[in-house]
Amino acid sequence: MPVGTAGTVKAVHQREHAGDIGAQIILGNTYHLYLRPGLQVLQQAGGLHKFNGWQHPILTDSGGYQIFSLAAQRKLTEEGATFKSHIDGSSHFFSPENVMDTQRIIGADIIMALDECTPYPCEYAYAKNSMHMTHRWLDRCVSRFRSTEPLYNYSQELFPIVQGSVYKDLREQSAEYIASRNCFGNAIGGLSVGEPAEEMYAMTEVVTNILPADKPRYLMGVGTPVNILESIALGIDMFDCVMPTRNARHGLLFTRNGIINIRNEKWKNDFSPIEEESPLFSDTQYSKAYLRHLLVCNEFLAAQIASLHNLGLYLWLVKESRRRIQDGSFMEWKNKMVPRLSQRL
Amino acid sequence: MPVGTAGTVKAVHQREHAGDIGAQIILGNTYHLYLRPGLQVLQQAGGLHKFNGWQHPILTDSGGYQIFSLAAQRKLTEEGATFKSHIDGSSHFFSPENVMDTQRIIGADIIMALDECTPYPCEYAYAKNSMHMTHRWLDRCVSRFRSTEPLYNYSQELFPIVQGSVYKDLREQSAEYIASRNCFGNAIGGLSVGEPAEEMYAMTEVVTNILPADKPRYLMGVGTPVNILESIALGIDMFDCVMPTRNARHGLLFTRNGIINIRNEKWKNDFSPIEEESPLFSDTQYSKAYLRHLLVCNEFLAAQIASLHNLGLYLWLVKESRRRIQDGSFMEWKNKMVPRLSQRL
Repeated sequence: MPVGTAGTVKAVHQREHAGDIGAQIILGNTYHLYLRPGLQVLQQAGGLHKFNGWQHPILTDSGGYQIFSLAAQRKLTEEGATFKSHIDGSSHFFSPENVMDTQRIIGADIIMALDECTPYPCEYAYAKNSMHMTHRWLDRCVSRFRSTEPLYNYSQELFPIVQGSVYKDLREQSAEYIASRNCFGNAIGGLSVGEPAEEMYAMTEVVTNILPADKPRYLMGVGTPVNILESIALGIDMFDCVMPTRNARHGLLFTRNGIINIRNEKWKNDFSPIEEESPLFSDTQYSKAYLRHLLVCNEFLAAQIASLHNLGLYLWLVKESRRRIQDGSFMEWKNKMVPRLSQRL
Repeated sequence: MPVGTAGTVKAVHQREHAGDIGAQIILGNTYHLYLRPGLQVLQQAGGLHKFNGWQHPILTDSGGYQIFSLAAQRKLTEEGATFKSHIDGSSHFFSPENVMDTQRIIGADIIMALDECTPYPCEYAYAKNSMHMTHRWLDRCVSRFRSTEPLYNYSQELFPIVQGSVYKDLREQSAEYIASRNCFGNAIGGLSVGEPAEEMYAMTEVVTNILPADKPRYLMGVGTPVNILESIALGIDMFDCVMPTRNARHGLLFTRNGIINIRNEKWKNDFSPIEEESPLFSDTQYSKAYLRHLLVCNEFLAAQIASLHNLGLYLWLVKESRRRIQDGSFMEWKNKMVPRLSQRL
């Protein structure tokens, strides 16, 4: 899922997402959308799909993560989270109940439960208490979710989130609890927060062994192309990450053959296409030298081309993974791709 | 001509230009392209078309205007102009001869003569002396142009530029001189530099009465939608202006029904399309409220949508003008459109 924080995946038109990249779903951030344009505008628009012109599914996070990464003066209690807007300092309160209502109003197709995403490293005792609070919050989310109706005449579904930091027993306990809530799909949170990749994979494996395989399993906030392939190998079905778009804006390109820092002098006279093997119009119409020039000149088109490129690569990776899982060649292909994808060009 | 200063019309993909907006030609700024990416890169790329992926004509200015509006420590002599780069302070020299060579290397289809664009207001004596120097420079340009060959296997043509400030006799004298050089097309410079619109129209009329009607007449740096229509009525065939793209980035939209400042609170809950009558995908897919939200959040997509919109409107204006000139309804339509286009919505 390309990340469309404020209702837009930065620098990418909706028709490019749907038509060129082939994205099936995008993510919106509840924290940002709640602050701007705000629920009044979104409700009057008829939900985010109508507001931003994206006609395919949208998943929204609960806003919890942004409260802890962006907002000022946040305070967490059993009741919920109080915080001040990073934009104008105004005070707000998110609870398990009101984030259900908020995400319904935003018009998400997939609504995420409010959780506490523990940092890394995290003491065992803190992780355990936090996990239990996340579970209690989940029950409040489920209760509110089930007692309210979808808006705008389409279905809305709830995903709960497994926590438990890097502790196997907590992850197992949390995965059992989350699975028992019998929701439409299930998510794994609290990973990709600074822990070594090996710990992330280990926890993912613990959890995917428990979460039902016939429902989507969503690993939140992951990751590099290699992280994506390794996690697919562990049974993950859905991802979101700002990495493809954020890195694109800084000139870091992920390609089928490795990683390119397009600011590097070595691309100055490289007039070969950005990525020859890509079917994306912008990957073959523009050269590396041109993209480098645009980035050096701080031109809008640099972010546009690079974001399209990285998203195109990510979407190609997951599409190719699906195909190869079906024909039985995924593991062989994954093991061949991992060293290629991670080398620096 | 959309203005593509550094080899990119800001925030617009080449396929959007050619396919969605229907631009037939774009402009590049010699001053900027000479500094970045520089002639070595452009020559090695095989010219700007190959470099930026634009397969239709490109016109480049001579760089003279930017030397006086952007560069530091410029000095003008009969020989040419010395200046320091606004980017790194390095020293450079442009002469009538070397700007011909530079534009050939850039790969322009239409090359502009080096001129001095007089400011407004301008003393008669200064305007007269400057005009004569511009004419002498033109002779040097023509001489160099005719003694050198087109590069990259396509034709390159030279346009001279009429000067003379707001003085009728100078404009007449200059137009006679420029017409006598018998170039492929002819341009009018030194207007749209702060003079009242009525003076601009008056000078344009003086000049178009002299410049041959069977060759393109190009009014440089003009203007608002109304300026464009009024100048077409006076016999102008070509325009360039940063106004549609620069104003777009600040949230000022030109529409068939008037001017919109999309930052205005009144558009906050206006979910109607940006411009219903427009065939442009972005004008009908996105709403005014969404564009306002994007602009308030300083999102890339705001510049993308607004730039497409304004360019689309400009290209529609000139396309519609061509059609109505052919069917004889131009003047009636122009007189109906002028008050509509200039009202504030």
